[in-house]
Amino acid sequence: MSRGPVAQRVTEGAFEDMLSADQFKAAFRNHPAGVAVVTADPGDGPVGLTATSVISVSANPPLLVFSLSAFSSAAPALARAETVVVHLLGAEHVHLAKTFATSGIDRFADQDSWSRLVTGEPVLAGASTWLRGRIVNRMEAGDSTVVAVQVLQAQTPELDETPVPLVYHNRTWHSLSEQSVLAEPTRS
Amino acid sequence: MSRGPVAQRVTEGAFEDMLSADQFKAAFRNHPAGVAVVTADPGDGPVGLTATSVISVSANPPLLVFSLSAFSSAAPALARAETVVVHLLGAEHVHLAKTFATSGIDRFADQDSWSRLVTGEPVLAGASTWLRGRIVNRMEAGDSTVVAVQVLQAQTPELDETPVPLVYHNRTWHSLSEQSVLAEPTRS
Repeated sequence: MSRGPVAQRVTEGAFEDMLSADQFKAAFRNHPAGVAVVTADPGDGPVGLTATSVISVSANPPLLVFSLSAFSSAAPALARAETVVVHLLGAEHVHLAKTFATSGIDRFADQDSWSRLVTGEPVLAGASTWLRGRIVNRMEAGDSTVVAVQVLQAQTPELDETPVPLVYHNRTWHSLSEQSVLAEPTRS
Repeated sequence: MSRGPVAQRVTEGAFEDMLSADQFKAAFRNHPAGVAVVTADPGDGPVGLTATSVISVSANPPLLVFSLSAFSSAAPALARAETVVVHLLGAEHVHLAKTFATSGIDRFADQDSWSRLVTGEPVLAGASTWLRGRIVNRMEAGDSTVVAVQVLQAQTPELDETPVPLVYHNRTWHSLSEQSVLAEPTRS
């Protein structure tokens, strides 16, 4: 994972050159993302959080990656889980995204909103697409941990029940539709 | 919840249990993403590719992550670069996204479409938001490499020139607008 020469280079005067946190956040403010809720039970109860960092990285074997911020209350428990469930949310599931992004509440208080897979992980009743997988690698990245998950099982909706896509952008929720399709520029 | 049975089941014959590539792709088909072009010059000329896997993972230090598929022609050169430029694209830059996703062409053929930073990396003339950074870590993930970049420098547009956000979803380009903002559900 970490390579000697790279680690050395980081040490040498990197901090003077580095971008400020505010400048970095400003650059990413206009970068949209899909929305997911990641759940797990590392052995002492269900935990979960909303993540806009879920990316598909490999189809064979099937692997996804997401980032766990040290500032998220659920992150430590998720980081030590062996398996997780990643729910990819549609616009109709925005209430789940909001619940699992809210601090200081019991995100699993509504007993009707979730159940357990036979393998034990919490699964959200409303989500039509989810992937269950095993954490196979972790990479420390500043104040976050990047987690790689090998997917073992997935639920996808029937084609005619595919949810309207949900997008997070600059603290606002968007949905995609025929109207949001980018028009092809006219070419002479 | 007991952890033993879960771990045991996962370990036993994990590969038989693994999701097929097609099932995995089907699950992610409805997951939208922002769009970026990553460029570099590892010493033997400019390389670049379109990536829908760029995520912000840490603000302090500023770190982003993206995934490089082994099937991308530009991936080997990008993977051995020391520094890269990550261009976060708006809807007006969709031509850049298309050019850097096209196989078998010289993506840098148009000499007016790019220049070099004083530090040597190729930068796309049309992109209003980009981040230059050093590759500080790599994680192998199946047929891809997950790359962590510590950001050293960024260009962001003036607030009144922020581009219309660009989203990739199910092989289609979308833009976000006031019209795509998700209506708040009415509550009784």
